[in-house]
Amino acid sequence: MQTIVINTGTELLLGDVLNSHLAFIAREIFPLGLRIDRQITVPDGPAIRTALAESMAEAEIIFVTGGLGPTTDDITREITAELLGLELRHDAAVMRAISARAARRGFRLTDRTARQADVPRGATVLPNENGSAPGLYLAANPASQKKSPHLFLLPGPPRELQPMFRSFVLPILREIVPQVSAVNRRTYRIAGMGESLVEEAIGERLLGVSGIELGYCARPGEVDLRIIGEQPALDQAGAIIAARLGPAVFSSDGASLEEAVVTLLTARKQTLAVAESCTGGFLAHRITNVPGSSAVFLAGYVTYSNEAKMKMLGVDSRLTSEHGAVSEEVARAMAEGARREASATFGLATTGIAAPGNGTTDKPVGTVFVALAADGAGTTVRKFYFPDDRPTFKELATQNALEMLRRSLLA
Amino acid sequence: MQTIVINTGTELLLGDVLNSHLAFIAREIFPLGLRIDRQITVPDGPAIRTALAESMAEAEIIFVTGGLGPTTDDITREITAELLGLELRHDAAVMRAISARAARRGFRLTDRTARQADVPRGATVLPNENGSAPGLYLAANPASQKKSPHLFLLPGPPRELQPMFRSFVLPILREIVPQVSAVNRRTYRIAGMGESLVEEAIGERLLGVSGIELGYCARPGEVDLRIIGEQPALDQAGAIIAARLGPAVFSSDGASLEEAVVTLLTARKQTLAVAESCTGGFLAHRITNVPGSSAVFLAGYVTYSNEAKMKMLGVDSRLTSEHGAVSEEVARAMAEGARREASATFGLATTGIAAPGNGTTDKPVGTVFVALAADGAGTTVRKFYFPDDRPTFKELATQNALEMLRRSLLA
Repeated sequence: MQTIVINTGTELLLGDVLNSHLAFIAREIFPLGLRIDRQITVPDGPAIRTALAESMAEAEIIFVTGGLGPTTDDITREITAELLGLELRHDAAVMRAISARAARRGFRLTDRTARQADVPRGATVLPNENGSAPGLYLAANPASQKKSPHLFLLPGPPRELQPMFRSFVLPILREIVPQVSAVNRRTYRIAGMGESLVEEAIGERLLGVSGIELGYCARPGEVDLRIIGEQPALDQAGAIIAARLGPAVFSSDGASLEEAVVTLLTARKQTLAVAESCTGGFLAHRITNVPGSSAVFLAGYVTYSNEAKMKMLGVDSRLTSEHGAVSEEVARAMAEGARREASATFGLATTGIAAPGNGTTDKPVGTVFVALAADGAGTTVRKFYFPDDRPTFKELATQNALEMLRRSLLA
Repeated sequence: MQTIVINTGTELLLGDVLNSHLAFIAREIFPLGLRIDRQITVPDGPAIRTALAESMAEAEIIFVTGGLGPTTDDITREITAELLGLELRHDAAVMRAISARAARRGFRLTDRTARQADVPRGATVLPNENGSAPGLYLAANPASQKKSPHLFLLPGPPRELQPMFRSFVLPILREIVPQVSAVNRRTYRIAGMGESLVEEAIGERLLGVSGIELGYCARPGEVDLRIIGEQPALDQAGAIIAARLGPAVFSSDGASLEEAVVTLLTARKQTLAVAESCTGGFLAHRITNVPGSSAVFLAGYVTYSNEAKMKMLGVDSRLTSEHGAVSEEVARAMAEGARREASATFGLATTGIAAPGNGTTDKPVGTVFVALAADGAGTTVRKFYFPDDRPTFKELATQNALEMLRRSLLA
């Protein structure tokens, strides 16, 4: 079924925010055999009219995001009703939900908020469990003179759209889509290998598997290998990948590297403490993003200053003055200090120079040491060099720290 | 000038990567007075033909990203030449650059690579300093029978496109665009107020300022108010905003809340330590994302377990057993402990219950206490309730903690 996504939002076209809806919707609808054929972004306001009219002539399913809010440039609801020749009516049940939400959170209702309870006649309301504006579904109308596809109007904020999509849009799609496709996708996530190395290891061999569509996506410290095809072909490809890449693949079910690490620690009933200098809390943040991490993650020590390294982790001040805070010796002492102080199975530490810092010839900006102290297995230190911007540097340093830990958990 | 961006890439429509080109191009061209009127994503392959043909009928400037690479589905170059009726010729200078790059990196050239040296007759080559495929610029042709806008074909990888855009596209745009616009933009970022309260406070009054365009963008714990217009109108709007919203505006120059906090701390020569339970390192991560934060941020204590709260922050175990780890009393003791242990001016602490945790009737999932201990000014504790998913909860808790600190720094 021809599927189009229309994203409204001047902020997208001004570069204030990235469009995360497209990726989210694409992933959610794929298992139903649906793929997005075209995506369009238009500014808030009347431009939605042309985009919607053009898309209605082409598509069988249209998802529109944004423009359902309370402000004056939110006119998706009105334009849709107008294009479909439907009257807008005030929906008392929606209004009650909006009022109850405001009361629960201690917000005062304004006149503008009430507009969000206007519903085109015949539309199905998609409840918004995380915001005021409900979504709307208008079924395809084969009796209509103009072509009238299935139309979903969804709220702009991702934390409102995403749960609504899973709870209320997917069940409707399952009714609409004639039969779920036999085509599946699998994404193998690989750490510690560059894109060309991954392709060299498996590319030629995978070309020998007929009926698969292959895609590579390189991210900081990670390569994602996408395979689309029917199950037997996917299995054949999977066997090649397992044989050639083995432990470099950290997930094939979408799990993140931090999820893989927390899963392994939980299974082994082991615990972790981290000591961070240059990654400044990002390592702890990634781990604590995983539900259930509190069972394995004991403590994080964000020791930006040398004094904090001494006081919190017992790093000998002579190490710092002799070798510098960014050194193999200090990384080692930090990891061992974190492990000891928190009585954890593992201590994982980072120390390095993020841009725009002061590097030296010996230790230029981008240098980072990662140390892993393990109960009974001693301490390993690795040196990396990521001459990148600050966010990429933190991403790469934490990625490689998590991968060092994961590899040792496989042993 | 009517401007359209066409992004090609199956990976975008499958949800494997976010489209970062749109935001990048939008920001780069705004100072020239250009805005993107529409953006379209199409898969690799022949779908680019329709999108390009339609856009050529409408736009004065078109940017196409992707489809210039060596593989068989990279056909942007060929389709463009065909639509414009231009012959493709092999460009020896481009081929030499490709060969030199391959030699330098030890890559073997394949037949496919050579395709990247094909150039439509009359096109200007935009050198690629970070990859093989050059960009191409085709000037608008007023003599053409069909409408023929300015056309920029750009490579897909951001690390290739971005430097090429700044070095080679912007100089051409400066020639094309008749005169740089007097229109500016300003974004006021506001914490601690909902979108409808912000609009209620200033909306009507700003409607009285002629010649401005207004936009609201709600993020977790933040509203961004965008105003576009000529300088006198911007100043007039700015005065209204200052009078009505005052200290709720934390930046008008694009700075993030954490940047605003680090700037204030730096100016006051004061220091900070944070103690985090439910935010798990995210608060430290946000602060250490700011270049120069090392001068004011002394230490972060990620104390997930009660033991860590005791050992690292000296939180009396009776407090935890009597009031629970998620309580005003423990938040207070954490903030004071962090301040004392790190000898900082301020100690900022969070303790709460993130989903999917175990709440009680008294303290349901989403409850969080934020405490701020200040040198000589005692300790303030606030209770919040964010019954949201885990990432949003962490976002809201850190946002409100940073805002508490910022407000106290304004005093």
